[in-house]
Amino acid sequence: MKKEIKNIQISDIKNPNDIKKYSYKELDGLAKNIRDEIINKVSINGGHLSSNLGVVEATIALLRVFNFDYDKLLFDVGHQSYTYKLLTGRSLDNLRHKDGVSGFQKRSESKYDCFEAGHSSTSISAAYGMAIGRDLKKENYEIISFIGDASIANGLAFEGLNNLSFNQHKMIIVLNDNDMSISKPIGGLSNLFRKISNSTSYMNAKRRYKKFLSTTTLGKKIYAFSSLIKNRIAKILIPSTIFDNLSLKYIGPCDGHNIKKLEKVFLKAKKFKQPVVVHIKTNKGRGYKYSEIDNNGSWHGVEPFDIKTGISLNISNKETFSKIYGDALYDLMKNNQELVLINPATMKGSCLEKIYKGFPDRTFDVGISEEHAIVMAQGLALSGFHPIVSMYSTFLQRAYDEINHDITRMNINMTLLVDRAGMPGFDGDTHQGSFDESFLYDLPNSIISMATSKQSCYELLNESLNNHGLFVIRYAKDYVNQFKKYPTSKFMGWNKLINKQNKKCLISFSNAGYQVYKLILENNIKCDYYEALYQKPICIDYVNQLLNYEEIFIYDAYANKSGFCLHLQNLLLENNFKGRIKIFAIEDKYYSHMSINEQLKLACISPDDILNNLK
Amino acid sequence: MKKEIKNIQISDIKNPNDIKKYSYKELDGLAKNIRDEIINKVSINGGHLSSNLGVVEATIALLRVFNFDYDKLLFDVGHQSYTYKLLTGRSLDNLRHKDGVSGFQKRSESKYDCFEAGHSSTSISAAYGMAIGRDLKKENYEIISFIGDASIANGLAFEGLNNLSFNQHKMIIVLNDNDMSISKPIGGLSNLFRKISNSTSYMNAKRRYKKFLSTTTLGKKIYAFSSLIKNRIAKILIPSTIFDNLSLKYIGPCDGHNIKKLEKVFLKAKKFKQPVVVHIKTNKGRGYKYSEIDNNGSWHGVEPFDIKTGISLNISNKETFSKIYGDALYDLMKNNQELVLINPATMKGSCLEKIYKGFPDRTFDVGISEEHAIVMAQGLALSGFHPIVSMYSTFLQRAYDEINHDITRMNINMTLLVDRAGMPGFDGDTHQGSFDESFLYDLPNSIISMATSKQSCYELLNESLNNHGLFVIRYAKDYVNQFKKYPTSKFMGWNKLINKQNKKCLISFSNAGYQVYKLILENNIKCDYYEALYQKPICIDYVNQLLNYEEIFIYDAYANKSGFCLHLQNLLLENNFKGRIKIFAIEDKYYSHMSINEQLKLACISPDDILNNLK
Repeated sequence: MKKEIKNIQISDIKNPNDIKKYSYKELDGLAKNIRDEIINKVSINGGHLSSNLGVVEATIALLRVFNFDYDKLLFDVGHQSYTYKLLTGRSLDNLRHKDGVSGFQKRSESKYDCFEAGHSSTSISAAYGMAIGRDLKKENYEIISFIGDASIANGLAFEGLNNLSFNQHKMIIVLNDNDMSISKPIGGLSNLFRKISNSTSYMNAKRRYKKFLSTTTLGKKIYAFSSLIKNRIAKILIPSTIFDNLSLKYIGPCDGHNIKKLEKVFLKAKKFKQPVVVHIKTNKGRGYKYSEIDNNGSWHGVEPFDIKTGISLNISNKETFSKIYGDALYDLMKNNQELVLINPATMKGSCLEKIYKGFPDRTFDVGISEEHAIVMAQGLALSGFHPIVSMYSTFLQRAYDEINHDITRMNINMTLLVDRAGMPGFDGDTHQGSFDESFLYDLPNSIISMATSKQSCYELLNESLNNHGLFVIRYAKDYVNQFKKYPTSKFMGWNKLINKQNKKCLISFSNAGYQVYKLILENNIKCDYYEALYQKPICIDYVNQLLNYEEIFIYDAYANKSGFCLHLQNLLLENNFKGRIKIFAIEDKYYSHMSINEQLKLACISPDDILNNLK
Repeated sequence: MKKEIKNIQISDIKNPNDIKKYSYKELDGLAKNIRDEIINKVSINGGHLSSNLGVVEATIALLRVFNFDYDKLLFDVGHQSYTYKLLTGRSLDNLRHKDGVSGFQKRSESKYDCFEAGHSSTSISAAYGMAIGRDLKKENYEIISFIGDASIANGLAFEGLNNLSFNQHKMIIVLNDNDMSISKPIGGLSNLFRKISNSTSYMNAKRRYKKFLSTTTLGKKIYAFSSLIKNRIAKILIPSTIFDNLSLKYIGPCDGHNIKKLEKVFLKAKKFKQPVVVHIKTNKGRGYKYSEIDNNGSWHGVEPFDIKTGISLNISNKETFSKIYGDALYDLMKNNQELVLINPATMKGSCLEKIYKGFPDRTFDVGISEEHAIVMAQGLALSGFHPIVSMYSTFLQRAYDEINHDITRMNINMTLLVDRAGMPGFDGDTHQGSFDESFLYDLPNSIISMATSKQSCYELLNESLNNHGLFVIRYAKDYVNQFKKYPTSKFMGWNKLINKQNKKCLISFSNAGYQVYKLILENNIKCDYYEALYQKPICIDYVNQLLNYEEIFIYDAYANKSGFCLHLQNLLLENNFKGRIKIFAIEDKYYSHMSINEQLKLACISPDDILNNLK
């Protein structure tokens, strides 16, 4: 009698180990249901789509072979953990929103999360540390780093691999190779993976090798000659990998959508006593027609969208700061051959695609290599170009040393576009963009600015080309207000938007400051308003104009207080200001996933909060 | 008639290209003279010895083959550039001292320096940027990154290699493989280099391969079979390298002390149109009996020493902070099996060798991998250990993101020993240790401290094990004062060393603060003195005790003002302090090489300067 194939629902998996009792056919059905759930919930909440659709079967197979009651699974970045969340009892209903699950692994969510990340390439080093810990305690469990081909090409991952290979503590690295990275692979390493994975080379090479040994005269002779030579001759036709170079065991590549085959390779990996790399080949975006054919990373991270049409629901006529800086930079690069643009894999998020298409010779996507991006920019500057580096605030943290040691120390002229400054919004604490202002503030030879109007975006970008050393232009993930007319200001200038000799004044900048400015006007508050387009340096002329106020409010919604706020306060005191100073900035804490507005309210620094303080 | 061999002196080289006119025999003589000069001048001034003695012939050969009037030479780190300095018209007379040459490449010193570093592994990325710049401008010159085997195993170097291999702009990487790194190589990559370089494997393999093809029956058949197979079969016997994996051309290994052979490989490299790696094999410390047999990095960076005996001239009975923390940590680790120590290649400088020897299972030298060190520590913490990471302040900059994203964000308990905090002394601006206090200050879940007495070193280290999140203990390269009796303070405490209700007070810490304290006593200055053992958090009880002073002086000789100074000032203001506040901290600028005392004087923040302000 044929066994009935049940349609397994996610809700049937009460315990992650339940998955072990189903047939492969049933699991294929479950995989389909998981995909539908992911597509559905991401279409409502936004989130990472393609990376999650690519690893459904791999996650199922991991749950079949391992037992995460004691084994440890570390998702690199963690933006591919939705299937794992669903199968370990979590709902995606409120994904990335207040009180819902995070878009990454989170220990507070589940005992099945032993690790957290949001930045890439940490999982190998962390797993290695755990493996040493396990072995020191003479415990016995498996530790798995699940990492994509883009993340493994980062320097930190390499340091982890290199050190791991030296000490040989057992762990499993699942290399999830989707041949795409966030947009596309950049670097010799991904070329190598492609070479290995490509069916016309590596897989056929294995077959060709077998055929060569069994059917050709020379092959037969070699086969007969000695097994030593036979094993060695495999290298003729089968390319060696970087893992061989590092003395790491390597299994693969394996079809990452075939649960049965995946189970087999994972079981094999489990038996090894040494560290082992399992190379699986997946299709990013699998199972949703639009993400399947996406070849520029449009479906990597998405806003809420209509499932039928694939069209984003967050349609707005307003332009974002990213868009405006992208356009402004395009115009500048068209007319100035000395400008070069470097970006580490956030081209799409920062609206730079048109520039990459327009000027392929002078634009460089270096993949997830923030440190390299900055030093490469130094090299370009030293050979006479003006580098523009675009980076998300949170990822810029990776390149702090290079900004300091290789750029400002040598007084290199460079424009640094810092996108996603301020509160992290739905990505949550791993993506907080509140630290860069203050760590950049301490660097000699640096300028820090943040615009409000489209006009001032253009002005800042233009000014940044004038040999000022490191010229930082920060901006939030936000829309730019439309102004019929907006005051302009000269270099290092502030805009005095309300200057009526009130007894108190507010100094702030960008959208949050502008919103308070409007509230001041609407509510007839007796308070002057200065927009500090430049947060560093603070021009002493402006400080002098502030000395007669009784009360000064300083509001930075995009950074903690150690940068602009404390330095302005210090300058005021040094110049004998006698009044009161009140500072509003992002508190020194980490903010979990919710909207940026919710985060500002939580920190008591929303524009409304400031207004209440001014009253 | 036999040509006379002249004894070429360094002074004979008026122009770097002069070196091209001498015979190999004469150059060997020159190499000897250069070695003598380096040994002599380093014995007087201190500096990097072994790395410089290792590359004398390689530098000569580079100057023979290339023309640095237009070709570009980037020394990675730059601590091996003494020969280059001597041959490009610079004297080592006042090496690393005020008005003398820097211990690294320095653009202001010579038109022959196109690059600067002091931190490792930047030269590939910088050279790559330069190569793109050159090619965009359609110019024609060579760019050479000269990098050691320890530096190339760092993540940044890997990112550079990986990206370079994708775009294939011509540059030459000279891999200077001395099989030693700073202490010894840590990682699979150095194993690989060793395998390649080892005469019993790689070099013989080449020979074995030739013999195999010409003398064996199978070999002859293969040779006859086809050249395709012939080339491919080379892989049987000749191990592939990571450079092959990245599609980079590879030449080597070559004897790095044979100028003729070096010239040949450099000429070969010059002819390539693609990037090429030239692997040379050198003996670190060559030509000086003590450094030649050094196998633990004792002769890497040295204080002035007696050439005859090899004994350091800076003998002092006082112990350094590094020594005390090393001893204290040894005692703790002996009795606490949960403590593990991680250090990136500064074991010797931070006096940790005894611990490494004593507890091989719980100590990890990860090589120049600061980022990996921190994330590996996270992994160890997640598996139940208390990690202690020891790092120089300046190198900690490389791991800023990991400290933030992987440690403090997850509130991981860890002790971070930050050595070489404050002014950089003779190493100069690349090694400035003044940034970490403020960039760590902004991190939630962190504590920052700095001790004065031996007793408080032990107390801090003990306290750091009590689950406080990130517990930072900073210390300068300085001796610890001997005290018969010194006050102790509880967690987060300050020591009130002078508390006589004077109208003014000074708040400071560690040696610099203590020196001012002594000057206050000696000069009968009417000023109270508080020693802030903890710079973060600042306990509000202490702030409250300060509110009645008319004038408060805050003195941080080990950091810029954005950390402790501005935050204390802010707290005072928030608590309605009405008096004057004066801050003394390291100015936001880079300080070139001279003694730490000279740097403090230059910044007007030496203890004497503070005293003058207190009077």
